[in-house]
Amino acid sequence: MKLRIPCLRPAVLGASTLLAATGASADEGMWTFENFPIESVGEKYDVQLAEEWLERIQRSVTRHESGCTGSFISPDGLVLTNHHCVVSCLAELSSPSEDLLEQGFHARERPGERRCPTEIVSVLIDTENVTDKVTAATRGLAEAAANEARKQELSRLEAECTAATRKRRDTGPLACESVTLYQGGEYWLYKYKRYDDVRMVFAPHADIAAFGGDPDNFNFPRWCLDMSLLRVYENGKPAQTPNHLPWRESGAAEGEAVFVAGHPGSTYRLLTMAQLDFQRDVFAASYIARNSELRGRLIQWGRTSEEAERIVQDLLLTAENGLKVVRGWQRALNDDALLDRKRAEERALRTLVELEPGRESPSPWETVDAAYDTYRAIYPRYLFLESGAGFMSELFTHARRLVRAAEERAKPNEQRLREFAESNLPKIEASVLGRTPVYPEFEQMKLAYSLEKLREWLGPDEPVVRELLGTESPQTLAARLVSGSELGDVDVRRALWEGGLPAIQASNDPMIVLAREIDDESRAVRKRYEDEVQAPTATAQEEIAALRFRMLGTDTYPDATFTLRMSYGAVAGWIENGERVAPFTRLGRLYERTTGQEPFALPEVWLEAKPRLDLSTPFNFVTTNDIVGGNSGSPILDAEGRLVGLAFDGNSHSIAGSFGYDPELNRSIGVHPAIMIEALRKVYHADELLEEILGGR
Amino acid sequence: MKLRIPCLRPAVLGASTLLAATGASADEGMWTFENFPIESVGEKYDVQLAEEWLERIQRSVTRHESGCTGSFISPDGLVLTNHHCVVSCLAELSSPSEDLLEQGFHARERPGERRCPTEIVSVLIDTENVTDKVTAATRGLAEAAANEARKQELSRLEAECTAATRKRRDTGPLACESVTLYQGGEYWLYKYKRYDDVRMVFAPHADIAAFGGDPDNFNFPRWCLDMSLLRVYENGKPAQTPNHLPWRESGAAEGEAVFVAGHPGSTYRLLTMAQLDFQRDVFAASYIARNSELRGRLIQWGRTSEEAERIVQDLLLTAENGLKVVRGWQRALNDDALLDRKRAEERALRTLVELEPGRESPSPWETVDAAYDTYRAIYPRYLFLESGAGFMSELFTHARRLVRAAEERAKPNEQRLREFAESNLPKIEASVLGRTPVYPEFEQMKLAYSLEKLREWLGPDEPVVRELLGTESPQTLAARLVSGSELGDVDVRRALWEGGLPAIQASNDPMIVLAREIDDESRAVRKRYEDEVQAPTATAQEEIAALRFRMLGTDTYPDATFTLRMSYGAVAGWIENGERVAPFTRLGRLYERTTGQEPFALPEVWLEAKPRLDLSTPFNFVTTNDIVGGNSGSPILDAEGRLVGLAFDGNSHSIAGSFGYDPELNRSIGVHPAIMIEALRKVYHADELLEEILGGR
Repeated sequence: MKLRIPCLRPAVLGASTLLAATGASADEGMWTFENFPIESVGEKYDVQLAEEWLERIQRSVTRHESGCTGSFISPDGLVLTNHHCVVSCLAELSSPSEDLLEQGFHARERPGERRCPTEIVSVLIDTENVTDKVTAATRGLAEAAANEARKQELSRLEAECTAATRKRRDTGPLACESVTLYQGGEYWLYKYKRYDDVRMVFAPHADIAAFGGDPDNFNFPRWCLDMSLLRVYENGKPAQTPNHLPWRESGAAEGEAVFVAGHPGSTYRLLTMAQLDFQRDVFAASYIARNSELRGRLIQWGRTSEEAERIVQDLLLTAENGLKVVRGWQRALNDDALLDRKRAEERALRTLVELEPGRESPSPWETVDAAYDTYRAIYPRYLFLESGAGFMSELFTHARRLVRAAEERAKPNEQRLREFAESNLPKIEASVLGRTPVYPEFEQMKLAYSLEKLREWLGPDEPVVRELLGTESPQTLAARLVSGSELGDVDVRRALWEGGLPAIQASNDPMIVLAREIDDESRAVRKRYEDEVQAPTATAQEEIAALRFRMLGTDTYPDATFTLRMSYGAVAGWIENGERVAPFTRLGRLYERTTGQEPFALPEVWLEAKPRLDLSTPFNFVTTNDIVGGNSGSPILDAEGRLVGLAFDGNSHSIAGSFGYDPELNRSIGVHPAIMIEALRKVYHADELLEEILGGR
Repeated sequence: MKLRIPCLRPAVLGASTLLAATGASADEGMWTFENFPIESVGEKYDVQLAEEWLERIQRSVTRHESGCTGSFISPDGLVLTNHHCVVSCLAELSSPSEDLLEQGFHARERPGERRCPTEIVSVLIDTENVTDKVTAATRGLAEAAANEARKQELSRLEAECTAATRKRRDTGPLACESVTLYQGGEYWLYKYKRYDDVRMVFAPHADIAAFGGDPDNFNFPRWCLDMSLLRVYENGKPAQTPNHLPWRESGAAEGEAVFVAGHPGSTYRLLTMAQLDFQRDVFAASYIARNSELRGRLIQWGRTSEEAERIVQDLLLTAENGLKVVRGWQRALNDDALLDRKRAEERALRTLVELEPGRESPSPWETVDAAYDTYRAIYPRYLFLESGAGFMSELFTHARRLVRAAEERAKPNEQRLREFAESNLPKIEASVLGRTPVYPEFEQMKLAYSLEKLREWLGPDEPVVRELLGTESPQTLAARLVSGSELGDVDVRRALWEGGLPAIQASNDPMIVLAREIDDESRAVRKRYEDEVQAPTATAQEEIAALRFRMLGTDTYPDATFTLRMSYGAVAGWIENGERVAPFTRLGRLYERTTGQEPFALPEVWLEAKPRLDLSTPFNFVTTNDIVGGNSGSPILDAEGRLVGLAFDGNSHSIAGSFGYDPELNRSIGVHPAIMIEALRKVYHADELLEEILGGR
């Protein structure tokens, strides 16, 4: 469940990443395809991996802009990913009379495949190293100026690259995105083919996809059919995808080498101690308190009606998953064994640098220390005003995007806020103009909650809070804003999107008014963050990266950045409290474990199908692969590139993987191909899909 | 708001306490009356304090068994305490047609004073040092045996003492309680006069008592009329209380010496690092996650109806207050400045001891380290099964008390669980047979929530969880238990209480059945806690205390234990972010700050009274006194023993006071006598009460 990127990345540490340490012997590392240690892995596991192997896999793996991974599994654009990666789409396609989460979905014929309102799927076609250009653009500049120049250069390069691919024959136009690796050690352009017509083909019932629900999340042994099938379309027809993955129905054996290709979201393995302390003391502390309360509110609100229970699911799953992650982070960051190692390494490097004769400027660690003191001071404002934690509402999200898009689109590309650069506009437009349903009562509940938290964390006497609330309470203000706003209507949003700045300025919609009025304060704290936290940290991290390269070598992988990576490992259990955990679960135990009650209930069709099923079918399994949120839906492959599983989660120890990989305990969890086939054939009677998937073997 | 003992003491660290460091110069310390540094304080503040001063104050101060302090302020048993100390009583006396929290309460004549169903008020009459007897009883025994022998000896001494006072003339019979000070450095018997007929006399509207609600809690400047008046009765008549406190209407001046007498609940100033790490990593992490979710559920459930909103108040206030405390603890325990000091001191003492030539047995710190490793392992079971976090329900609480009382009362006094010793039985009986209302829907909501958490934290495959839930969900089980139980009926409870073991064994009440069935598992984990955590820790703490006495001197105060203490200090503001916070607030600002919306709304009578009021009346004020939860309702006194304030809270920095006192920042907050008088006179027209309070000057 977890491996979808939790909704907490941007607020945590900005976009900057850190060089991660080398880990040649353990199954550690989320390697870029350019730098995958193909020979040493081949030796370790006694397998032959051809260069073409990487190329074919690259073109078969999809990136889901909602925060997941998938893979093509037929020549007609059929995509395999997790069920939990399509929960938003299923929720958006549901209605009071048709709950696709509860009932599942199966389009028996292609015309019945239903378009997901906001889903965008990308495939990485090419990459290009542009480090020299970026370095040249910032040379000699001070921190804040360098930060600004770097952003402008990246926006310029993206636009130039995208324009250059406009007439590309083999793939059609591509979207270019800049990527920072080794925190400024390298800058790249990643060139994606985009599919914005993505349709729902098949989803099992939520009760079997997420069997065990939150109690089982991040646990193993496990029995989740966490799969779904989408199809990408081009020009109204199924896209042709000659690169796709064949299935190996029997899966991989215990101890066999397996590979996971996908888009791990973020890791924080080489943060400085100041950054780790911030993560624990400020970020995790605030996140857990706020989201635990939100969880309680969502659960209780969901119990007010069946409709409410349906509406609340998507956000509740996200909140519960995020809580498991961040509580795991908190545990990891209170773990002396992990922290002492990091502390000792930092102290050693830092001492060597700070004792260098003639050194006058502050060491990069001192720079980060100071930047993070500032971050601590401004974090609540940044979180509630700029990251939007104070305004949890789809309507407000639309309003802010409309207000900012109007302002930003009027500027030259390089001077815009990064998320409004030309290369990013299609994603913004898709979400603003997507036909996502808006539920007024739910909006009101969420907005009242978040305004209460804003007041709690910024304080009732803080001027921005006083101005915002006036003599209203969070509840009355939320009610007024939601009931008065027309932004739930996509035509209203389109008119504002197309009308640009004049339309925005003329609007009396209360959400637009709020987004306009809060924007100066919000941009101000963002600027402080960018100039006083992000900029000095980026410069300091570059310096630390260079020092690490110099002192510890270059045979390393960068921290995760939601870009394509390959990890290697083997099918293997682990030892928990002295007991061996076997690597495979089997179908039979599912029937012993069901209670008939959520979240351990089984759908009727599964109960009915039991006599037909092979109860010894492997269900879920664990591997040593080093993966993280964003890898959800990643194919697990054997050395020949055949699909032997579908990654969907990690065990509880894997949560600490954000900060360091532990080969003894860290395990990925996948869905076995045999259970997917068994279910499609005998429970869902999806013979046409099986024919499409397995037919071409 | 906070200074009522948060509902988290017993589960945290058991009853054991630790010797606290000396703090002669700063205004630090919660001193026992025997050891109050009367001379050095007199010198520091240039005041004369007579011994009789302490005696008179001791007899004027009340201990409220619900976790607060109060004081007699008339010869007829009138007690002043906080409004937040009587919220439970007000809730119990409320009904759908009469919400005493919202409306306040004022009995204009004595027959209208209404009895609080479960309130017990005590006054400390005598104390007796029994250290020698306890030490003799445990001499030469191993840890677990010593722990058991100590408990038995304390129960025996209590019973003997209580019996000896049965015919006491001057006071009537007393209840003797054993008290452990300096964690086994000293054992005492404290002898209380008990009042179990406690009646509500006056409570202002909750909107003015807790103006600013949770957002303002632990903040200053502040405007809370957090006062209430109770009266203790004996034999159906107002009790005679010749010892009571006169008021000084004008209060104390800035810089003037002031004293707080009361019952601080718990401090943890000399925990070992292993214990502090446990507090942060295990206790606080779990508490914040669980109670934040509970808070969200309570708020959202409270919005389902007006009746629900009323019912939920008491528990919600407790949860929100507890969250502020524990989040403050978490901050303190992540604070390097505080922790490094403690770490350095421990390292120094520990090194000296562990390097002693010829030392073979483990040092006391090693003993605590090992005990707390065990505590970490068993904590979830202890918390959910024994501390009752898995069964949040009044009905279950009754059931467990009935089941255990039946078993324990059949045993000799010394062999019982401590809370069922003869000396404690009246409190247990009062709560089991009190006429506290039970709200089935609320019960169901809380119980479902806590069963869900039990499953979450112990895991769905844990045998005790599987046995408990069977094929039911937490929701269906909660519904079945609550709807099937008759324990809401006080007559049913009385029959079971009086019927003893046979009645309990014959009962089919589903709550009784649950309490019976879970009891073996629950007692088992309690026994592990007592034998493997509490016992070795107690022995180790004794040793550490002796070492500290030897190395650091004996002029010290013990950690707080909800027993009578005196703290000294002065009226003083502090510096926050470079700005001086003035020590007094005044009434006028209240009217500027109200928004008309909860929690910043004012009751109608306050709006109406405004023209009559002196807007320059001092409202709340801060002092340097070192107090903590349990001190709620404590009188703030001048050097002549006149009441110059009513303690009700501390500033946000005071929360860290659980671990250490910071003279620069730690402040107590009190209600000024002038505003109490102004309100009683001009808002509530309580002339008869003013006459009673001020008449005797």
